[in-house]
Amino acid sequence: MKRSSILELLAQVERRELTPDDAAERLATLPFEDIGHTRIDHHRSLRAGLPEVIYARGKSPEQVVAIFARLIASGVDVLATHVNDATAALVLAAHPQAGYHSVAQVLSLRQSPPMETSGRVTVLCAGTSDLPVAEEAAISAETFGVHVTRLYDVGVAGLHRLLAVSGELRGAHAVIVCAGMEGALPSVVGGLVGVPVIAVPTSVGYGASFGGSTALLGMLNSCSPNVSVVNIDNGFGAAYIATLIARASAR
Amino acid sequence: MKRSSILELLAQVERRELTPDDAAERLATLPFEDIGHTRIDHHRSLRAGLPEVIYARGKSPEQVVAIFARLIASGVDVLATHVNDATAALVLAAHPQAGYHSVAQVLSLRQSPPMETSGRVTVLCAGTSDLPVAEEAAISAETFGVHVTRLYDVGVAGLHRLLAVSGELRGAHAVIVCAGMEGALPSVVGGLVGVPVIAVPTSVGYGASFGGSTALLGMLNSCSPNVSVVNIDNGFGAAYIATLIARASAR
Amino acid sequence: MKRSSILELLAQVERRELTPDDAAERLATLPFEDIGHTRIDHHRSLRAGLPEVIYARGKSPEQVVAIFARLIASGVDVLATHVNDATAALVLAAHPQAGYHSVAQVLSLRQSPPMETSGRVTVLCAGTSDLPVAEEAAISAETFGVHVTRLYDVGVAGLHRLLAVSGELRGAHAVIVCAGMEGALPSVVGGLVGVPVIAVPTSVGYGASFGGSTALLGMLNSCSPNVSVVNIDNGFGAAYIATLIARASAR
Amino acid sequence: MKRSSILELLAQVERRELTPDDAAERLATLPFEDIGHTRIDHHRSLRAGLPEVIYARGKSPEQVVAIFARLIASGVDVLATHVNDATAALVLAAHPQAGYHSVAQVLSLRQSPPMETSGRVTVLCAGTSDLPVAEEAAISAETFGVHVTRLYDVGVAGLHRLLAVSGELRGAHAVIVCAGMEGALPSVVGGLVGVPVIAVPTSVGYGASFGGSTALLGMLNSCSPNVSVVNIDNGFGAAYIATLIARASAR
Amino acid sequence: MKRSSILELLAQVERRELTPDDAAERLATLPFEDIGHTRIDHHRSLRAGLPEVIYARGKSPEQVVAIFARLIASGVDVLATHVNDATAALVLAAHPQAGYHSVAQVLSLRQSPPMETSGRVTVLCAGTSDLPVAEEAAISAETFGVHVTRLYDVGVAGLHRLLAVSGELRGAHAVIVCAGMEGALPSVVGGLVGVPVIAVPTSVGYGASFGGSTALLGMLNSCSPNVSVVNIDNGFGAAYIATLIARASAR
Amino acid sequence: MKRSSILELLAQVERRELTPDDAAERLATLPFEDIGHTRIDHHRSLRAGLPEVIYARGKSPEQVVAIFARLIASGVDVLATHVNDATAALVLAAHPQAGYHSVAQVLSLRQSPPMETSGRVTVLCAGTSDLPVAEEAAISAETFGVHVTRLYDVGVAGLHRLLAVSGELRGAHAVIVCAGMEGALPSVVGGLVGVPVIAVPTSVGYGASFGGSTALLGMLNSCSPNVSVVNIDNGFGAAYIATLIARASAR
Amino acid sequence: MKRSSILELLAQVERRELTPDDAAERLATLPFEDIGHTRIDHHRSLRAGLPEVIYARGKSPEQVVAIFARLIASGVDVLATHVNDATAALVLAAHPQAGYHSVAQVLSLRQSPPMETSGRVTVLCAGTSDLPVAEEAAISAETFGVHVTRLYDVGVAGLHRLLAVSGELRGAHAVIVCAGMEGALPSVVGGLVGVPVIAVPTSVGYGASFGGSTALLGMLNSCSPNVSVVNIDNGFGAAYIATLIARASAR
Amino acid sequence: MKRSSILELLAQVERRELTPDDAAERLATLPFEDIGHTRIDHHRSLRAGLPEVIYARGKSPEQVVAIFARLIASGVDVLATHVNDATAALVLAAHPQAGYHSVAQVLSLRQSPPMETSGRVTVLCAGTSDLPVAEEAAISAETFGVHVTRLYDVGVAGLHRLLAVSGELRGAHAVIVCAGMEGALPSVVGGLVGVPVIAVPTSVGYGASFGGSTALLGMLNSCSPNVSVVNIDNGFGAAYIATLIARASAR
Repeated sequence: MKRSSILELLAQVERRELTPDDAAERLATLPFEDIGHTRIDHHRSLRAGLPEVIYARGKSPEQVVAIFARLIASGVDVLATHVNDATAALVLAAHPQAGYHSVAQVLSLRQSPPMETSGRVTVLCAGTSDLPVAEEAAISAETFGVHVTRLYDVGVAGLHRLLAVSGELRGAHAVIVCAGMEGALPSVVGGLVGVPVIAVPTSVGYGASFGGSTALLGMLNSCSPNVSVVNIDNGFGAAYIATLIARASAR
Repeated sequence: MKRSSILELLAQVERRELTPDDAAERLATLPFEDIGHTRIDHHRSLRAGLPEVIYARGKSPEQVVAIFARLIASGVDVLATHVNDATAALVLAAHPQAGYHSVAQVLSLRQSPPMETSGRVTVLCAGTSDLPVAEEAAISAETFGVHVTRLYDVGVAGLHRLLAVSGELRGAHAVIVCAGMEGALPSVVGGLVGVPVIAVPTSVGYGASFGGSTALLGMLNSCSPNVSVVNIDNGFGAAYIATLIARASAR
Repeated sequence: MKRSSILELLAQVERRELTPDDAAERLATLPFEDIGHTRIDHHRSLRAGLPEVIYARGKSPEQVVAIFARLIASGVDVLATHVNDATAALVLAAHPQAGYHSVAQVLSLRQSPPMETSGRVTVLCAGTSDLPVAEEAAISAETFGVHVTRLYDVGVAGLHRLLAVSGELRGAHAVIVCAGMEGALPSVVGGLVGVPVIAVPTSVGYGASFGGSTALLGMLNSCSPNVSVVNIDNGFGAAYIATLIARASAR
Repeated sequence: MKRSSILELLAQVERRELTPDDAAERLATLPFEDIGHTRIDHHRSLRAGLPEVIYARGKSPEQVVAIFARLIASGVDVLATHVNDATAALVLAAHPQAGYHSVAQVLSLRQSPPMETSGRVTVLCAGTSDLPVAEEAAISAETFGVHVTRLYDVGVAGLHRLLAVSGELRGAHAVIVCAGMEGALPSVVGGLVGVPVIAVPTSVGYGASFGGSTALLGMLNSCSPNVSVVNIDNGFGAAYIATLIARASAR
Repeated sequence: MKRSSILELLAQVERRELTPDDAAERLATLPFEDIGHTRIDHHRSLRAGLPEVIYARGKSPEQVVAIFARLIASGVDVLATHVNDATAALVLAAHPQAGYHSVAQVLSLRQSPPMETSGRVTVLCAGTSDLPVAEEAAISAETFGVHVTRLYDVGVAGLHRLLAVSGELRGAHAVIVCAGMEGALPSVVGGLVGVPVIAVPTSVGYGASFGGSTALLGMLNSCSPNVSVVNIDNGFGAAYIATLIARASAR
Repeated sequence: MKRSSILELLAQVERRELTPDDAAERLATLPFEDIGHTRIDHHRSLRAGLPEVIYARGKSPEQVVAIFARLIASGVDVLATHVNDATAALVLAAHPQAGYHSVAQVLSLRQSPPMETSGRVTVLCAGTSDLPVAEEAAISAETFGVHVTRLYDVGVAGLHRLLAVSGELRGAHAVIVCAGMEGALPSVVGGLVGVPVIAVPTSVGYGASFGGSTALLGMLNSCSPNVSVVNIDNGFGAAYIATLIARASAR
Repeated sequence: MKRSSILELLAQVERRELTPDDAAERLATLPFEDIGHTRIDHHRSLRAGLPEVIYARGKSPEQVVAIFARLIASGVDVLATHVNDATAALVLAAHPQAGYHSVAQVLSLRQSPPMETSGRVTVLCAGTSDLPVAEEAAISAETFGVHVTRLYDVGVAGLHRLLAVSGELRGAHAVIVCAGMEGALPSVVGGLVGVPVIAVPTSVGYGASFGGSTALLGMLNSCSPNVSVVNIDNGFGAAYIATLIARASAR
Repeated sequence: MKRSSILELLAQVERRELTPDDAAERLATLPFEDIGHTRIDHHRSLRAGLPEVIYARGKSPEQVVAIFARLIASGVDVLATHVNDATAALVLAAHPQAGYHSVAQVLSLRQSPPMETSGRVTVLCAGTSDLPVAEEAAISAETFGVHVTRLYDVGVAGLHRLLAVSGELRGAHAVIVCAGMEGALPSVVGGLVGVPVIAVPTSVGYGASFGGSTALLGMLNSCSPNVSVVNIDNGFGAAYIATLIARASAR
C-alpha cells in the first residue's frame, strides 16, 4: 500500500466519505496480509515511502511469483533481489512489464509515476569482479527513484584512476562503495567526500579473504568517520539507506 | 581551518586583497600541518564542515594536549574521544573553556557561534551498561550542532518500554541505536522508523558476546534494510554520520 | 521398547507369569540391540517416554531403512529427520503407513494410541526461509503427541505482525522460536511470555550470517532470561525439549 | 509489582473500589518506572511470577544500590548477580535483611512468604573450579523457591563418581549441568535422565578452552536431545528456566 | 626400502661382500628417489619399520598409480588413504593383489610375511556416521600388523552401551576413539582405561560442529590426562601412533 | 590408593585375613572420597599406576592444601601443577618433604620407593621462552619415575642446533616437543625418530600466534604421522602419556 | 604501455619531435584506458617494469579475452592467472602465440625481447599437492624474466630431502616457499639462506588446515626473521616480489 | 661471530697460520654456544651478515643481560627488541655504550665500523599510534646499517598527506608500511612505488580490529602485488627483510 493510498484514505475521511472508525479499521487491518507462507508487510512502505522488496534466495520460484503478484496488485513499486535466471523467467512470463537485470540478479517494476526527486547517489566499485554487487546497488537505487552515477574499477592500488574521477564524486548526496579483498576503497573515498559513505564488502577474493570477512572487518575499522557498513554483498541494503539520505537531502 | 575561514580567503580574492595564485598556494599548503608526531588534517573540516576529532587512546597525554591546543588555535570546534580522567584534567588545566563528560570520556569545545541547524538525531540504548557509548554518541552529535533526544534502557526483552517511546522516535532525521549482548534493538527500531538507523554494537556482555562481536554480527544481519553499522563502541562515528544526515535533511 | 511394554513386563512378574530373575535378565539385555552397524538404543524411550529418532544424514539409505524397520518392529513411535526424498521413497515403499513431510524432510510414524495429553507448544519463525526448520520442529512435536500452534513469518522488523499474534502466544506451555540472520526474535518473544523459550538458530542468511553462527550467538546472548538454545537448524531437538516441558506442565 | 498486587488491583475493580478506566490507567503506567539511568521493568515479574533480577557487572555500585532499593520498595523478591564484595557491602549496609553469597557473587532477598512449591531442580558440576557458576545457579533457583539438590565434582573422566549419584538425579523436574573444558557432562547426564537438561558452559579451562567457547560448542552439539544451552557462566539463566519447568511440572 | 633390506646391506659389509664406503654410498643415496613430481621417502620406513603411506587426495590418479607401483617395487608394505573408487579401480587393475576398502577409502598391500606381533589396538566410534574414519584407523592398524578390536556406535548419550563393552576395552595396548559432534567419548574412555587414548575428531555433525572443529576442541580439553589428539578425520595417523605404542608394549 | 595397596588388599583375602565381602566393600567405597568441595578420585591411580594430580589454577590455596594433604595421607605419589609461589609456600610449610619447581610451577612428592623403570623420555623445546612448559613436562615425567633427557632451545630456524643433538633423540621411548610461534619443531623431530612424538603447543609468541592457537593448529596438521597433540601449555598431559608409553615399552 | 615506450616518448621530447606540453598530456591520459567493465592500469607497468596481470577468476571468459587483447595491443608482456581450461582455449584461439600452463592455470605471453637479467629465484614446495601453486609462482617469475630453479616435494618431515638440495638453495637472490598443512618449510628454509624468503601458504590439507589458514598463521609466526608472507595460494604475488628483489640484486 | 671474523679465519688458513683441520673444527664448533638456558646462534650472522637479535619478551631480565653480554663479547652488532624500561636499565648499567629507544622498546649496539652501504629504506605509518612499531622498524634498520627515511601519520583517509610525500617514497630500495585499524595504507603505497613493500599490521585499533587481525587480513589481501606481510607489530622482522633487499639492491 503506497503512501499516497494512505493519504487518499485520510482524505476520504476529511471528505466525510469514510468514518474515522472505518478508516482506523482499515489502517489497522491493511498493513500486512497473510498469503499462507508469507505475511506481506505493507507497513514498511508506509513508513519509508520505498517499494516492497523480495529477497528471493531460500524461497521457491512459486513463492517468489506469488509474492510478486500480490505486491503488483497492491500498486506499489516492486524489487526482488537474488533472483536467478529461472525464477526471473517465471516472473517475466506472468508480468512482462517487469525488468530483469541478470548481472545484478535483480527484478524490478516501477508502478508509481516517473521520479521527481533530485536525489543523487554515486556507486563505486574497486574491481571488475565487484560488478554484480555494485549493479544490485545501482539498480535498486534507480528503482527507488534517485539519480545514480557509476564509477567502476577504481581500486586503491591504482590511485590515479580514483583521483581521475574525484570530481564526479563531489556531487552525490550519498556514496556507495563496493569492494572485496582488503576493502580499502571506502576509507579512501570517505576522505575525499563530505557525505555519508555506505560501504558494501563483497565476497570477491580468495584465501584469507574468507568470503568477504576481511573486507567487512576492514570497512568496520575505517579511519574515515563518515563510513558505515552493511552485510557482505548487500548492495540492496546500501541502496536503501543511500536513497533515504539522498531523498531527504534533496528535498 | 573552518569553512568560514576558507570563504573569507575566497572573499579576499574577490576583493583583490589576495591574488588567486597566493590563495591557491595557501589552500594547498594549509590543509594539514606537521607538529612532529602528528599531521593535523584540516581537510576534513573543509570537506564536511564538522570539527576536528582527536582519538585519545594510544596517544600520550602530552600528545593529546598538543593536538588540542593546535586545533583550538585554528579556530575550529574540537572533540576528543576516549579521554581518561587524568588526560582530561591536563587539557582542562590549559583550556578551562572545554567541557569534559566523564561517563562518555569525551572532551569538547565549540568555538563556532551557537548552532542554527534544525537537524534532529535520536540516540537509543538497550541497557544501562550501554550508557557510556550512547553518551559518546549524544555528546558528539551535540558538539556537531544537532538536536539530540536520548531514549535509554529500552531493550527488546521489555518491548513495552520501547513502544512507550515510539512516538518520540518519529521526529528524528537519523537514529543511533547502541546495544550489546545480542544487539537486536536496531532491527526492531529499524522497523519502526522511516529514516536511516546507525547501529553501534557495544562491548557490553560476557561469555559468548565476545567483546561486542555478537552484537556487531547481529546488526550486520539486520532484517531491517535501513540499518548500517559502525565499529564496536564507536559512538563518535555514529554521531558523525547521523549529523551529516540530519544536517542535509534539515536544510 | 515402549514404557507400556516395561509395565507389562512388571505386571507379568506381579502375576507370577515371570520370575523376577527372568524379568531382570530381560530388562538388562533388552535396552539396546546390535544390528551390525548400529546399536539401537531403547533406553531413551524407557527414560523419557518419547519415540526413537533416526538422524538420517550421514547414513546410507539402506541403513535408514534397516533401523526404521527395527524400530517399527519394536512397537515404538518412530521419527526420522534429515531424510531426503530418495531415502523417504525407499522407506515409504516398505512402510506405506509412515508419513513424509518433504519441506521438513521428516518421516514419522505413530504406533501408539491417539495422544491424550493437553500439552501445548507454539512454534514461531521469523521469515519464510526458516520454514523447513520450523516444520521439523512442529512435526516432531506433533509426532511426540503435543498440540502445536504455528505462527510463521513474524520477524522483528515488522513488529506489528508479532504483536498481532501475541494473544496466541500466551496459551503455550513452551515456545519454540526459529530465526536466522540476526536471530533477534527469541529475545522479543521471551519478553512476551512467561514460559521457557527454546531458540533454534537457522542457517538462513548470507555473508556475515556465517551459516547460522550469528543467529546462534545472538540467541545465546539473549537479554530474556527464559531463552535457551539448541544447535543451528536443530528443530527436532527443540521439539524434544518443548514436549518434555509441555507434557510435564499439562499433567 | 508482584502478581498478587495485580490481582489485588483487579479485585478492587470487582469490588467497585476502582473504576475500570483507572485500573487500566494504572496497569498501563505501572509496568516500568524510570529512575533516570534505568527503566525498571515490572512486566517480567507480572508475566513469569519470578523476582526481578539485577545484573550488576557494568553498573556502578551506586546504580546497583538504587535499583535494589526500588525493587525492595515494590515488594518483590530480589536477586542480583555478579555482585562483587565491595558493592555487596554497600547494599548490605542499607538492606541488612538481604543475603550475600560470595562464592556465587549473588545477593538475594525473598520478601514473599515461604515457598510452597514442590518443584525440584538438581545442579551438577564437573569440577571444583565450576563451583561459582553452579552456586549462582543453585542460589538463584532457591531464591526462586524451588528445592535444589547439589551434585558437585562429578566429571566424566571418573564416571563412577557420576554413576554413584545417578539415583539422586532421577527425582528432579529439571537438571542444570555446569562444566568447562570439553563440556561433556551434559551429554552423559542427558542420557541418564528423562527431563530437560539446561547446560551451562563455564569459562573454566586454559589454552584451547578459549574462555568457555569449547564447552559451549560441545554442549550445542550434544548427542542427547534433551539438552539446551545458555551463555557461558550464565548460572542465573539456567536457574530461571529450570525453575519455570520445575514449577509447571510440580503444579 | 625395508628395515630387513638395510640389515642385509649391513650383513654384506660384515661378510666383506661390500666395502663400507660403497655401503655408505648406497645408504646415503637410497633413502629417497625422485620420480619427477614426488620424492619418495624410504627413510620413514627405515626409522619406524612401518609401511610407506600415500595420501591420495590432491594427487591425480596417475600420480597415485605411479607412486604405488614404485613402493611395491621396493618391497615394502603399502597403504594409500583417501582413495576414491575410480582411482582404486585404476590401481587394482595394475595390482590385483592389493585390497580396497571402500567405506574407509583405503588401499592396502602387505608384502612382508604374516604379522608376528601380539600388539593390540581397540578402535571405538561414537556413532554410525563415524564409521569411515574408524575403519580407516582399523584397516591401517591391521595393515601395520597389530590385532584390532572394533567397538562401534557406543556414544556417551547411551552410557550403558559403552559400559557393556568396557571389559573388551581393558586388553588393548592403545585405544583409538573416533567421535564427531561434541567429541565427548575420548574423555569417558580415557577414564576407563590405563593406556594411551588417541582421539580422532570426525567431521560428523552439522551447524555448530563446524566440520569437526567442535569435536577437536573438546578432545584437546579432555579432563582425562591420557588423551592426545590428531587432526580431524585422521584415522590413519591415529593408527600409526597406536601401532608404535602397541608394538613397543607387546615386545 | 596405590596399585600396591590394592594388591595387598587382595593378598589379605588370599591369606584369609579379610573376607571377600569386606574386600569388595572396601574396593567399592575407596575409589573416591568426598572432602566437601572435591571428590578425590583414587580410581585413576588404580587404573594407570600413576600418581594423583592436582590442577591448582582456579582452586583456592586452602583447597590445594587440603587435597594435597589427603593424597599424601593415602600413600600415593602427588603432583600439583600451575601452583603459584604463594600457594606453594603454604603447602611446603605443611609438607616440607615436597619439592617445588618455580619455573615449572609444579609441586611434587614421591612416596613410593625409588624408580625401577628403564623408561626413557626426551623433552625438547624450541626456544628459551618455552622453558616453563618444557619443565612442567620434564618434572612431571620424573615424578612419574621415568628417565628424562632435556634438549632445549633447538628451534627449526637454526637447524644445525637440532641436528647436533639428533643422536640423543634416538634412545627415547617417547619424545615430548614443546614449541610456540609456528610450532614447526614436532614435524621436524617426528621425521627424525621412530617413536611417538607428543606435541605441546605453548602460548609463546605475539600477534598472530593467538595465545598458542597457531602452534596448536600447526601441530595438528603435522606431516609427520607419529605426532599427536595435547592442549596449549599442557606439559603435564604430555608427560602423562609419554610415561605410559615409556613404561610399557621398557617393560 | 611499456617502460621503453615511455622513454621513447621522452626521447621524442628531447629530439623536439614532441612538445613538453603534448608529452605531459599523453602521459597524463595514457596510464589507463576504460574498456567499459575494466579500467586497464598501465601505470603499474610504468612503475615496476613488470607485465600487466589479469586475475581471471570472477571474470567472464569474454572479459578475459577482451582485456588480454587490449594488453597485447599495448605491446607489454601479459600474464593471466587462475585461467581455467575453457577460458584458456578461447584466448589461445585468438592469440595462438600465448602459452597455457594447465597445472598452474596460467596464461603467459612475452612480447619484450629475450631476458637479459641474471636474477635468480628458487621455488620450493613441501609436497606434491602444492605443485599448482608452486608452478604458478615459477611460471610467473619466468615470464617476468628471471631464472627459476625448482626444488619440489622437500617437506620438513623428511629433512634429508631438503638438506640434499641445500646447496642449490644458496645461489638464489630470493626464495619462494610454498607449503600447506602446518606450513613449517619457510622457517626451516629461512634458517638455511641469507636472502629474503617469500612464503606462500597453500590450501593443501584437510580438517584443521582450514583451507590454508593454518599454514598462513604458521608462516606469519616464523622464527626466521627473513620470512614474509603473501595470501593463501598466491603464487603470482610471491613471484612478483621475488622478481623485484632478484632484478635489483642482479643489477 | 661476524662475517669479517670468518673471513679473517679463512685468511689465517691462507696464510698458513691455521691448519684447515683446525679451521674446520672452529667453524663447526663456533656457530652456537650453549649458555645453559639458551643456545646462541651465530650461524645467522654468518649467513646474512646481520647482527644477532634478542627477543626480550618472555625472557627474564637476567637472561636478557646474559645473552646481551655474550653477543657483545663475540664482537657482533646487537639488537634487542621488546625491552621494557626496567630491563633496559639493567643492560645499560652493564653496557653503557648501548643505546635504548624507549618508544620503540629497542636496545641496540653497533660494534662494526660505520656503515658503508647506500641501501635506502623508507618507513611509513598510518597514524600517531603506530609510532612504536614504526620506530622499532626504523631503529632496527638503522642498526643494520641502511639509510632510513621516516614518513609518519600519512593515513589513507587524508590522501593529500600521503600524496604530499610521494616524491620521498620513490628513492627507496624497499618500503616498510606500518598500519593498524583497516590496514589499507600498504595497498595504496604499493600502487605508488615499484619496489617491494613490507607491510606490518599493528595492534592499533579497538573493537573489530581484534588486536591487529583486521589489519593483518587486509594486508594479506592487498590488491597491490608487491606487498608481503609480517606478523602483527613485527617491526623488527620488516626491517630485517627490507635491509636484505636494500643491501642487495645498493650493491
